[in-house]
Amino acid sequence: MKASIIAVGTELLFGQTINTNAAFLSEELNHMGFSVMYHYVVGDNPQRLKETLAEAFQNTDVVLLTGGLGPTQDDLTKEVVADYMDADLYCDEAVIKDLDEHFAKRGVKMPENNLKQAYLPVGCTPLYNPSGTAPGFALLKEGKCAMCFPGPPREMKWLFEHGARQYLMELVDRKMFYRIIRTIGIGESDLEMKLLPLIDNQTDPTIATYAKEGECTMRVASQRDTMEEAEDAVEEMIASINEIVGEYIYSVDNENLNEVVVRMLKEQNLILTCAESATGGMFGANITEVTGASAVFKQGFIVYSNEAKTTELGVRPETIDSFGVVSAEVAKEMAVGAQRKAKADIAVSVTGFAGPEVESGYTPGDAFVGYAYRDKVGSIEIHKIRIIRAWNRNIFMTEMLKTIYLLLKEDLK
Amino acid sequence: MKASIIAVGTELLFGQTINTNAAFLSEELNHMGFSVMYHYVVGDNPQRLKETLAEAFQNTDVVLLTGGLGPTQDDLTKEVVADYMDADLYCDEAVIKDLDEHFAKRGVKMPENNLKQAYLPVGCTPLYNPSGTAPGFALLKEGKCAMCFPGPPREMKWLFEHGARQYLMELVDRKMFYRIIRTIGIGESDLEMKLLPLIDNQTDPTIATYAKEGECTMRVASQRDTMEEAEDAVEEMIASINEIVGEYIYSVDNENLNEVVVRMLKEQNLILTCAESATGGMFGANITEVTGASAVFKQGFIVYSNEAKTTELGVRPETIDSFGVVSAEVAKEMAVGAQRKAKADIAVSVTGFAGPEVESGYTPGDAFVGYAYRDKVGSIEIHKIRIIRAWNRNIFMTEMLKTIYLLLKEDLK
Repeated sequence: MKASIIAVGTELLFGQTINTNAAFLSEELNHMGFSVMYHYVVGDNPQRLKETLAEAFQNTDVVLLTGGLGPTQDDLTKEVVADYMDADLYCDEAVIKDLDEHFAKRGVKMPENNLKQAYLPVGCTPLYNPSGTAPGFALLKEGKCAMCFPGPPREMKWLFEHGARQYLMELVDRKMFYRIIRTIGIGESDLEMKLLPLIDNQTDPTIATYAKEGECTMRVASQRDTMEEAEDAVEEMIASINEIVGEYIYSVDNENLNEVVVRMLKEQNLILTCAESATGGMFGANITEVTGASAVFKQGFIVYSNEAKTTELGVRPETIDSFGVVSAEVAKEMAVGAQRKAKADIAVSVTGFAGPEVESGYTPGDAFVGYAYRDKVGSIEIHKIRIIRAWNRNIFMTEMLKTIYLLLKEDLK
Repeated sequence: MKASIIAVGTELLFGQTINTNAAFLSEELNHMGFSVMYHYVVGDNPQRLKETLAEAFQNTDVVLLTGGLGPTQDDLTKEVVADYMDADLYCDEAVIKDLDEHFAKRGVKMPENNLKQAYLPVGCTPLYNPSGTAPGFALLKEGKCAMCFPGPPREMKWLFEHGARQYLMELVDRKMFYRIIRTIGIGESDLEMKLLPLIDNQTDPTIATYAKEGECTMRVASQRDTMEEAEDAVEEMIASINEIVGEYIYSVDNENLNEVVVRMLKEQNLILTCAESATGGMFGANITEVTGASAVFKQGFIVYSNEAKTTELGVRPETIDSFGVVSAEVAKEMAVGAQRKAKADIAVSVTGFAGPEVESGYTPGDAFVGYAYRDKVGSIEIHKIRIIRAWNRNIFMTEMLKTIYLLLKEDLK
């Protein structure tokens, strides 16, 4: 069954908001076996929204809309959808009650314009929204389904998980199964060249490769009459992929590298720490993003200045003087100092120059990742020549994660 | 002049990649005075891409395309655009040279399929790409302009800044000026209600409000014959806005709160440090995102476990026992410890529970932000009842930033 997604909001066309909703909904829809054919973004303009809705329904049976359900004057999605699908609006008492409670709990008076949100199309399935104020809804007419969500991502997600997914599940016929395979250390071109015998003439399962900052990911998917058939087809294909590029694969379960690293640390009963200069806390933030990271990560050190490296972690001033602060020697002393101070089994450090300006002697993108794993101490040089600060910092952080991953896999020579 | 953006790539429809390119290009286009009317996303399918291109050109004069310029079999954007605009492809020697150098520098052999990237439409303006391998191009025919960029955001941005912006500038007639006003402490509904007298019947300048995690932003824009007229109109409107909601405004220059905080610290010649539990390094990462943060931020402490809070920052075990680790008392002792240890003027801390599971006694979203500013010590309670870990962590971090901002503004009672 074909689906499309329309995001409504002038702020998206101004570029002030990134359309993360479309990505979330696409992933979920694909997971359920829908084929997502198009994303559209239109402004808060009823005529253009109506035309886009007509266009979407011409190509697909299910149209998910996000945004434009709020209380302000330019929130018009509900009105346009109801008009297009020829439904009147009614005042929903349950929404009134939700609104009253929402504002009472916060001890503020409900702004008058919020009442607008209580009107829903006759015949719809409401998606009540305790996490915000605008409810969503699904409206099914003559085989076409429009489903509307509020724009704020957390509200949209909550409604998706509390009603919308279940509703959509009942619309699909064929079953889809897929797995996401993540790799490091191989580029997209190379990966595709190696897998060409499997990719060529693919019908089902399909293999799609795509590159994401420093990584290359594959999606292996099959759509069959039963979930068992689809699953078997995917597993068989993954076995073939493993034979060709198995050494580059770090997850076949769509885990991120931080999740894999936390899982491996738990399995091996190890405590991790970090000493961060150029990344300023990004690595610690990334590790603690993983639920349950507290079992393997107790503390970390953000040592941005030379003095902090010395006083906090015992990096010797003469090491900094002799080799420079962005050096293998400093990276190693940082790791050893952090390991000792945090009483950790494994420590990873970074000292580097993220840019954007070129400081004397360093090029943005130059960095050293240090590590101390029990008695093993070493460093890895990074030399990327990127001009963008955020990009460099992200590369440094990914390199820190990779280093730990390889140490735990005992692959680091 | 009207513009639209087409992102090409099945990975976008799978939801594996978020379309950040459309946001970046939209912001830039708006800045130059284009009206961005639509975003489209289509898969790597020549027929659907061709239809979408036709649709985009029916509604707008300028169409920017991202993605599908790479070396793999499903990269077909260039071919479809050339076909639609009736241009043949030629082999560009400069691209061949770039490709040779790119692979030589990395010491690897060029995969054969990369040669495909050297073909460009006859009559186009090439956008050579030293940061990657796929060049972009602009093709202008009969008043319609198609401009193609590679999909990876950093490559797209680089090409935009090195050739594309200049090219597009020459296409616009009327001049656009806008400023982004950022506020904290007021919701979107309230803000709009207060500004209704200014927003109602707006033609030019326009005021658009939008909410983003915990903040509300306004864009005030004017499009006139000369830049001076547009600027004057915007400044006049901002003066009126300031009279009504000035107390909530922290920037009229599209600065983020971290940039404002770093700037204020520099101006006041103060050193900042942080002690992070639940945020695990996010605050430090956020502050050091700002270029030049090293002048005001020397070090920070990631103290995730109770023991780390005690040994590293001198939080008393009896404080943790008596009040619990998520308490005002612990937050304050963390801030005071960090301030002393880092010899900082101002320290901010957080201890909280991000979730997702409900641990004994704490609800996800509960946290305390502590601060120590010279002799002033205090804490702020956060109680949000959110279920999403990343969302909670982000709220905590924003609250830390806000606390410093208010302290520096001397607004914190």
